[in-house]
Amino acid sequence: MHTLFQFHPSGNCYKLRLAMRQLGVSFRIKEINILKGESRTPEFLAINPNGRVPVLQVGDRYLPESNAALWYLAQQTHLLPDDSFSQAQVLQWMLFEQYSHEPNIATLRYWQSLANIDTSELIQTINTKRQAGYQALEVMERHLAERDYFVGEQYSIADITLYAYTHVAHEGGFDLKGFPGICRWLVAVASQPGFVSLAD
Amino acid sequence: MHTLFQFHPSGNCYKLRLAMRQLGVSFRIKEINILKGESRTPEFLAINPNGRVPVLQVGDRYLPESNAALWYLAQQTHLLPDDSFSQAQVLQWMLFEQYSHEPNIATLRYWQSLANIDTSELIQTINTKRQAGYQALEVMERHLAERDYFVGEQYSIADITLYAYTHVAHEGGFDLKGFPGICRWLVAVASQPGFVSLAD
Repeated sequence: MHTLFQFHPSGNCYKLRLAMRQLGVSFRIKEINILKGESRTPEFLAINPNGRVPVLQVGDRYLPESNAALWYLAQQTHLLPDDSFSQAQVLQWMLFEQYSHEPNIATLRYWQSLANIDTSELIQTINTKRQAGYQALEVMERHLAERDYFVGEQYSIADITLYAYTHVAHEGGFDLKGFPGICRWLVAVASQPGFVSLAD
Repeated sequence: MHTLFQFHPSGNCYKLRLAMRQLGVSFRIKEINILKGESRTPEFLAINPNGRVPVLQVGDRYLPESNAALWYLAQQTHLLPDDSFSQAQVLQWMLFEQYSHEPNIATLRYWQSLANIDTSELIQTINTKRQAGYQALEVMERHLAERDYFVGEQYSIADITLYAYTHVAHEGGFDLKGFPGICRWLVAVASQPGFVSLAD
């Protein structure tokens, strides 16, 4: 049985809970409270020297990086398309998520709704991340204008990756009213068999 | 024949030139000068709505994100391990590179050595990126202390990904003197059959 080292409110950790539930994979949870520094202890750094959750434990091996673990779980399942170009497109959106989406949208949610920090000295950084976050949402909206899902007209881990922080973007102060394609897609993802919410 | 839309000094673009040379893949180059705004024209945004290079054209399809294209090229070659857990570890390092390494080390190189911008108002951001860049190098150093390559004791696209900006980290003001494992690994990568430099 796999073990998921996670912080429950984290979207990156939610990706793996959602995928494992939808794939019928059994797992146990080891909660790591990042707000209390539990991801920076010597014990946790021995598991992931980068000091981040989630980490998926498979046997006696540890796999950090949410999207790498998502990929591992989805191999040869209905959550990953078969052909190599479509698989590369799934990776394209996973890398887009980690480079252009998460550092902006997830970070503002973390600051605004989870960490309860003083942001008065971060105004310039917040403005930069706000603008970059909306740019990422615009790229998604343009892609979804003519598609139901991100890759190959089927629900895949590309959708799980991007759903994780998009559906809680409002908790970071983002307004999705001007993004009808994204709003339609959010409903489609939440209607998938075996869907569980972030709070579950 | 593939087409690589690239900006030659970019480490992200160099990853694909290096891999294609080492794999014997024929390709043509379409140079996009990002310093002159050529990645933000309507023509280029039709190819990649995210407005970034590289993009790999395969037939009539376009694949953005350097590491997704690297993955596509390396499928079933000696640059990607066979087993699924090792493949997930390759992805783990690719995602680490795009989240924890490139936004810090490559961005400081870009500001300091390529874009020739006024950084006087960016002091706080530069300090943050400097610290995060060194943290990423420490994670790499710790991993390489007991290993020759990043995954499975063989040269792979995980090494190509991390080599791209690590070997020019000094151009962003990073000093690798305190990182003997990284320095040894840099030499090992540059000794691989078919290696070409970033300038080539």
